Amino acid sequence: MTTRESPQSRLQSAPGTQCSALLTDWYQLSMLDAYYQLDMQETAIFEFFVRRLPKQRSFLVAAGLEQVLEYLQNLRFTPEEIDWLASTGRLSSIGLQRLASFRFTGRVFAVPEGTVFFASEPILRVEAPLPEAQLVESRVVSLLHYQTMIASKAARCRLAAPRAQLIDFGMRRAHGAEASCLASRASYIGGFDSTATVEASYHYGIPLSGTMAHSFVQAHELESQAFLNFARCHPQNIVLLIDTYDVIRGAQRVVEVADRLRSDGIRVQGVRIDSGDLETAACGVRAVLDSGGCEDVQIFVSGSLDEYAIERLVSAQAPIDAFCLGTRLAVSEDAPSLDCAYKLHQYADRPVRKLSQYKESWPGPRQVYRRYDPSGYLAMDVLACEDEVIDGRPLLQEVMSNGRRSCEPPPLSEVRRYCAEQMEQLPPKYRTLEHVLEAPVKVSQGQHRLADEVGQIPH
Amino acid sequence: MTTRESPQSRLQSAPGTQCSALLTDWYQLSMLDAYYQLDMQETAIFEFFVRRLPKQRSFLVAAGLEQVLEYLQNLRFTPEEIDWLASTGRLSSIGLQRLASFRFTGRVFAVPEGTVFFASEPILRVEAPLPEAQLVESRVVSLLHYQTMIASKAARCRLAAPRAQLIDFGMRRAHGAEASCLASRASYIGGFDSTATVEASYHYGIPLSGTMAHSFVQAHELESQAFLNFARCHPQNIVLLIDTYDVIRGAQRVVEVADRLRSDGIRVQGVRIDSGDLETAACGVRAVLDSGGCEDVQIFVSGSLDEYAIERLVSAQAPIDAFCLGTRLAVSEDAPSLDCAYKLHQYADRPVRKLSQYKESWPGPRQVYRRYDPSGYLAMDVLACEDEVIDGRPLLQEVMSNGRRSCEPPPLSEVRRYCAEQMEQLPPKYRTLEHVLEAPVKVSQGQHRLADEVGQIPH
Repeated sequence: MTTRESPQSRLQSAPGTQCSALLTDWYQLSMLDAYYQLDMQETAIFEFFVRRLPKQRSFLVAAGLEQVLEYLQNLRFTPEEIDWLASTGRLSSIGLQRLASFRFTGRVFAVPEGTVFFASEPILRVEAPLPEAQLVESRVVSLLHYQTMIASKAARCRLAAPRAQLIDFGMRRAHGAEASCLASRASYIGGFDSTATVEASYHYGIPLSGTMAHSFVQAHELESQAFLNFARCHPQNIVLLIDTYDVIRGAQRVVEVADRLRSDGIRVQGVRIDSGDLETAACGVRAVLDSGGCEDVQIFVSGSLDEYAIERLVSAQAPIDAFCLGTRLAVSEDAPSLDCAYKLHQYADRPVRKLSQYKESWPGPRQVYRRYDPSGYLAMDVLACEDEVIDGRPLLQEVMSNGRRSCEPPPLSEVRRYCAEQMEQLPPKYRTLEHVLEAPVKVSQGQHRLADEVGQIPH
Repeated sequence: MTTRESPQSRLQSAPGTQCSALLTDWYQLSMLDAYYQLDMQETAIFEFFVRRLPKQRSFLVAAGLEQVLEYLQNLRFTPEEIDWLASTGRLSSIGLQRLASFRFTGRVFAVPEGTVFFASEPILRVEAPLPEAQLVESRVVSLLHYQTMIASKAARCRLAAPRAQLIDFGMRRAHGAEASCLASRASYIGGFDSTATVEASYHYGIPLSGTMAHSFVQAHELESQAFLNFARCHPQNIVLLIDTYDVIRGAQRVVEVADRLRSDGIRVQGVRIDSGDLETAACGVRAVLDSGGCEDVQIFVSGSLDEYAIERLVSAQAPIDAFCLGTRLAVSEDAPSLDCAYKLHQYADRPVRKLSQYKESWPGPRQVYRRYDPSGYLAMDVLACEDEVIDGRPLLQEVMSNGRRSCEPPPLSEVRRYCAEQMEQLPPKYRTLEHVLEAPVKVSQGQHRLADEVGQIPH
């Protein structure tokens, strides 16, 4: 069920890398206009982080950086967009002029995609003239938020099923076209094996999977004829859907059909069950298949699956070879948003912080130093000022300077491998679906000192 | 806070109306390939409906039809896409040939956008040669699912706040670019007044709103200087964010600043509070503003708002003029997916149904007949076979024939007005945030009879 990798060139036009400069919040444009009028163009430092993790998450997996860098590099206003902005009568002529020639020229530091991280840790830092660093907020948040949420959900599914195949079926219930493709990408990073979304395979080279729909069976008068027809038209990768009428009778028909197909040299790869009690159904179907000489036919299951359902089925030793996840993966059903932010930490060399109730932020540019124990497990992250001297491996690295990428993006398969390695370094107590209250993170003395100083500045 | 309507022409290129034909599930293509090989091209009838409503919903609002019709009308495979499909080695040459010249040529019946509906009622029916009606499933579901979910959430927010301004702030946490823009569109249909998403205003002509961010305040050394600068750069539509450091001191600074601005002929329209206990903060801020001669300055609030929070604030008579909804609207946080389906109901004049456990479907093409009581309230929907003679107004109307729209799309403001009218026809017991168990829907005798007949067909 795999297909060859797409050529690198197509990645440039993938969904999520091309969007209008108008895909932003209105206040970004009115603030930009003010910054230009006031000539406030000193360097601003913004950081993206997740304030608090959803109560169902003990760690997150960073994803979306590739699309952020593409966005920053290609960001332009078209003449038509400038004309329209002018027609609103809300921006100054100096503002419109500056937007017409707008380019992102800043530096970006980030953790690699696939990195495990915790609440409050920056995973991206933008250093750029204030108007540039400001304008990009809405889209940067959108890209990092969604893919990080999905990669994290996918990594949990992989924890629940270390060995089974995991397949993304989420396209139709994901929230729109871009989410469909980015869900495939992010779930692949988090440990999924393949996707059913054709466009995601085309753009990102993700292996493609697919079975058949109930309508195919219904469009035939006889279920067994539908099975035979499908198999003969698609002699590779045959996965037959067996629950349109009755799942056990469906399995019995697969046995008959597999026998007839065997003489034509055609092998049925698997069956899919999409309804009912999946544990009971899988056991019943396995027995029918085995007693009918179809020991090598795999069982795929789908239907409202998530990491919790997978864990139950795996613990019960249900004979399932592949889990196909749709809605609950693609919308991250139990936690469909992250409490994330892109906040100003410094302007014109002056560290700043926000003191809003329950939403205070740390001041100044920061770095995360990761320490490991002798067994190679993550022992502690230290959240420090960027210029402090701290033990540990610094996670944020320069990925863009002068508005250009510092290096070529790694292949997606490499990102996926790196994420799997990150998951292996996660201490066992975080490698479960249960919520672990405390994160292995401490804040440096230097950072505390700076926060106190900045907090005391009278405004 | 409004902007003029966009020209109709731009609606054609709006997000959600243009997408690759590869934005589909792989099984659609393998089934298509089989249908072409088997010459199964008789007319198929598929219907889109929501099986069960989320437990937090008592009704839904249909939305997304416009994007579906655009999609169907423009659906093409590019030569590059065909080449790539060929390179996968998974499709037959006859299949590839047919895809290269693929067009949607069918008929579509649908309820108008903004229509209130209930579980199991079809809101769209596609009648087309089987391969065409099949291929479009994934994208049709994606478009109707998301916008219907958001319009329904928005309508609940409007129920909770019949008079306040409602503003969409959801772009950054919506799941990707398309969701951002379609959330603005769907929430506008459901009763919102405006959006902060610039691209949604550009494409759909939705009134544009926006305030300012904390970073603007932080980039200044003094909060009051930030307020003055913002106001002087943007003398219209001034909404000042007052909770960066301390919300009451922020309000006091607005009073001082408003006084200075008044002499320049500049009026502060409002203040925004984004953190803390919004009821307490709004009361405190209102008192400060009123005693400082700023009785006409409105209070905008934001931060984790949804219909439940709005209802609490409105019941407490908190002095709030505008609610700005972000994340919880754009991801429909309490119900981020709908259990919807696009199912085959008839093929080659043979009614069919699915009997999968808990996922049985009704057979044959259907119609919804809506009846009203003497006061004009919706009294009962009757779900019947399409050709039954039933009292009531039929909700599904032809909107496309031979793959072309039957009429021009109504302006979005008209759809919004129609939705408000639908909400007024909803009986009072459904016009609350509480869940009402039973829907005002019954199934006709003819439909029951047909289901029994079809269910008894031996497969």
